[in-house]
Amino acid sequence: MAASFSLAEIVARLGGEAVGEAPGPLTGVATLESAGPAHIAFLANLKYRSQLAASRAGAVILGPEEREATQLPRIVTGNPYAYYARTVALFNPPPPVKAGVHPTAQVDPAAIVDASAEVGPFVVIGHGTRVGPGCAIGAGCAIGANVRLGEGTRLHPRVTIYDDCTVGERCILHAGVVVGADGFGMAPDAGRWVKIPQVGAVRIGNEVEIGANTTIDRGALDDTVIEEGCKLDNQIQVGHNCVIGAHTVIAGCVGIAGSVRIGHHCRIGGKAGITGHLEICDNVTVSAMTLITKSIRKPGTYTSVPPFMPHADWLRYAARVRRGHDEGEEP
Amino acid sequence: MAASFSLAEIVARLGGEAVGEAPGPLTGVATLESAGPAHIAFLANLKYRSQLAASRAGAVILGPEEREATQLPRIVTGNPYAYYARTVALFNPPPPVKAGVHPTAQVDPAAIVDASAEVGPFVVIGHGTRVGPGCAIGAGCAIGANVRLGEGTRLHPRVTIYDDCTVGERCILHAGVVVGADGFGMAPDAGRWVKIPQVGAVRIGNEVEIGANTTIDRGALDDTVIEEGCKLDNQIQVGHNCVIGAHTVIAGCVGIAGSVRIGHHCRIGGKAGITGHLEICDNVTVSAMTLITKSIRKPGTYTSVPPFMPHADWLRYAARVRRGHDEGEEP
Amino acid sequence: MAASFSLAEIVARLGGEAVGEAPGPLTGVATLESAGPAHIAFLANLKYRSQLAASRAGAVILGPEEREATQLPRIVTGNPYAYYARTVALFNPPPPVKAGVHPTAQVDPAAIVDASAEVGPFVVIGHGTRVGPGCAIGAGCAIGANVRLGEGTRLHPRVTIYDDCTVGERCILHAGVVVGADGFGMAPDAGRWVKIPQVGAVRIGNEVEIGANTTIDRGALDDTVIEEGCKLDNQIQVGHNCVIGAHTVIAGCVGIAGSVRIGHHCRIGGKAGITGHLEICDNVTVSAMTLITKSIRKPGTYTSVPPFMPHADWLRYAARVRRGHDEGEEP
Repeated sequence: MAASFSLAEIVARLGGEAVGEAPGPLTGVATLESAGPAHIAFLANLKYRSQLAASRAGAVILGPEEREATQLPRIVTGNPYAYYARTVALFNPPPPVKAGVHPTAQVDPAAIVDASAEVGPFVVIGHGTRVGPGCAIGAGCAIGANVRLGEGTRLHPRVTIYDDCTVGERCILHAGVVVGADGFGMAPDAGRWVKIPQVGAVRIGNEVEIGANTTIDRGALDDTVIEEGCKLDNQIQVGHNCVIGAHTVIAGCVGIAGSVRIGHHCRIGGKAGITGHLEICDNVTVSAMTLITKSIRKPGTYTSVPPFMPHADWLRYAARVRRGHDEGEEP
Repeated sequence: MAASFSLAEIVARLGGEAVGEAPGPLTGVATLESAGPAHIAFLANLKYRSQLAASRAGAVILGPEEREATQLPRIVTGNPYAYYARTVALFNPPPPVKAGVHPTAQVDPAAIVDASAEVGPFVVIGHGTRVGPGCAIGAGCAIGANVRLGEGTRLHPRVTIYDDCTVGERCILHAGVVVGADGFGMAPDAGRWVKIPQVGAVRIGNEVEIGANTTIDRGALDDTVIEEGCKLDNQIQVGHNCVIGAHTVIAGCVGIAGSVRIGHHCRIGGKAGITGHLEICDNVTVSAMTLITKSIRKPGTYTSVPPFMPHADWLRYAARVRRGHDEGEEP
Repeated sequence: MAASFSLAEIVARLGGEAVGEAPGPLTGVATLESAGPAHIAFLANLKYRSQLAASRAGAVILGPEEREATQLPRIVTGNPYAYYARTVALFNPPPPVKAGVHPTAQVDPAAIVDASAEVGPFVVIGHGTRVGPGCAIGAGCAIGANVRLGEGTRLHPRVTIYDDCTVGERCILHAGVVVGADGFGMAPDAGRWVKIPQVGAVRIGNEVEIGANTTIDRGALDDTVIEEGCKLDNQIQVGHNCVIGAHTVIAGCVGIAGSVRIGHHCRIGGKAGITGHLEICDNVTVSAMTLITKSIRKPGTYTSVPPFMPHADWLRYAARVRRGHDEGEEP
């Protein structure tokens, strides 16, 4: 049942140059190490070059410099990693969207669901919401009022989108994502906290992917914005009124406080944090678990966390850090 | 359809002193920068004072010191930020609670749901649970047995509350919150882990707000407690048997291990961590991403994370840190 | 209604030696401090030894060295903490599994649900999925196609399991868990990101417990694996293609990047992070909030985060750290 292709057929669809032809039909993609004769493997990171000789792959994807590094049937392409991505997609197309609304779904009469969209069981869709052509909405999603879902967007099960939020075209939102919950805003008043209603919304551009259980808060007055092509991993928190520039990627467990503006093509490492009201310019890389506490105006990589070490060594390090501050002395 | 008020009407409802009157009806709140003639703006942080002159706002909220800083129609109040919060609420009242149980909801016959409460589609409510007057329970919430929800509490979609937990009055729980999952308790036994059943519950006071996908574990034997007026942001983890004092605010992505006692009016910064069995006294501020590993008995602000820097500088810093511990020398 | 036991009955079920007998029936477990005459308490951590004299407990569990430290009726056992765990379970058995599929559940005709399993309201079960004997699936769970749930596994409400994933026997997955969402894989191509379809799955061994809102991503080509006996707390992120060794415990809010291999019997502290493609050998302990950036080949405890301090002291510390790197000098 699985798709099966020859090298020539792959190249016809995805471009690149075929050198030789696989001995039999290719039925999937695998790593150089685990591939068998029915697999096409790939060499995208040169540290795996030594695996080429021993690979049992039926064919391999590689760059022009590696063209003669193997006698295996091969596809030569300028960007083997992106080619690998497209080849996996060729062998594993997304499940087809089954047009129609599941009989258990609760769709408000004033919502407009395109006839080509799929709405799963136990979905709730609110007043005035529009679901675009080819959308697929997984089981148990809760979509508020006046929401817009662009063409071809896929929501996995149990996504929540609050009222008035917009999601672009060809987006993917994974299970447990929450878009548009209230930003964290309150005013102190005589020892208590007065809630500031959050009346902005969230606007998400086209081709954005958002990982499982990530949360993106609605704005206080203006909107929170995720621009096109951003890729967010799991369990990220984006505070109210942030603007994340196009094609920025954010790894898992990152926390971004309110009103942060991040440029385009940034890369934020896993578990990093960014405090509120900062600006990060384009093309900045933030290392894993690094805390950014000032605006960054120069592209580059930024880091804060000290190296880990055996705990006994750490105890001496910690004592030095403490002594420095206890004595108020410079080391 | 939106609410519309004059300055005089706002002051009649919220107090403060009106100086002048807006030229036309006010229909919403905006920042000084984005406000137009139909908006009321606010000056709560003096760093935005320079925006006052150019603001096109129809009126502005400000403190007594700024009374003469503008000729705009204005409201003078001792706490402009709290006044702003209340003004936003005046223009944006929460959606009305629509009394009644959705026909798809599964309410145990031995649960007691007040006639004035709203229960959304696909909600499950267990045996012996009581839902107070004016509660609103969003789509897909799963509420166990013997739970108590106090008057006026609102659950957004897909909240889970395990058996025996209590939520106070006028609380707000956002989508994906989990209250009362098992605390992380197990005993080592011959190379395996024996689960310790968690038979305490969670008790949440009045006027607590809990952000999206935050989790609060039930106690091992005694209860986990969140006292009144606490505000918790998104993706916070509160371990079993913690006690969080009244009016403490906790920013996103904070992790609090088991049996931590936090005082009242504390402020815990985003992504901070607190290890188990500690006591934090009242009025403590913990900086973002700071790890607290000892009890704190003195109010103040505490910090641990070193400053971030360009990665090339960090490499030198890291080498110094490592050399110190490798050589066992003091610097 | 609650269970009630004598010391002799407990020992008959759980082993150990009874010394004396409780004056009346025991109806539950409590701490030394809060126990009354109907409770059995326990002394597992010697720092609580001083509480023994004043305890009002009807009986106490303790180790052989403490055998004569009290005159209370007692159970002497080599592992009082594990004995305590089993005693709590004796008094608090898990709720019985009520065989049957709730009429609102949507079970694909080609799924096989054992007749002894319980399937709650609003559950969705996909094509080809098998639910083993004695499983209990909570309200609102979304289980994809070709999933396997082993005998006796319990899913709390609102768990999502994507297609093709496997969960072993006697596992517990708490509310909001997401198993099998796409790993974070994409290839840069001309300033945009090309998604790499994630076609591996997740395999979870027997007796694994997974805390609320934890996410475990499916593999890119091969599977992500959680071996038997692992215990994962809440809000953990496990990246694609990780392998977590048997009986490893991971505390809350840990983030593990892709392709990390962790050995067996490791202990990962809360909020720790592990960057991608590392190997951590058996019996490693990672301290809370520590970032592991290199493979670890030697058992032991590893730490990175500097000690917290009052913010004024921290400012001096931060200035020293910055001066070191600004001047390019060794301290």
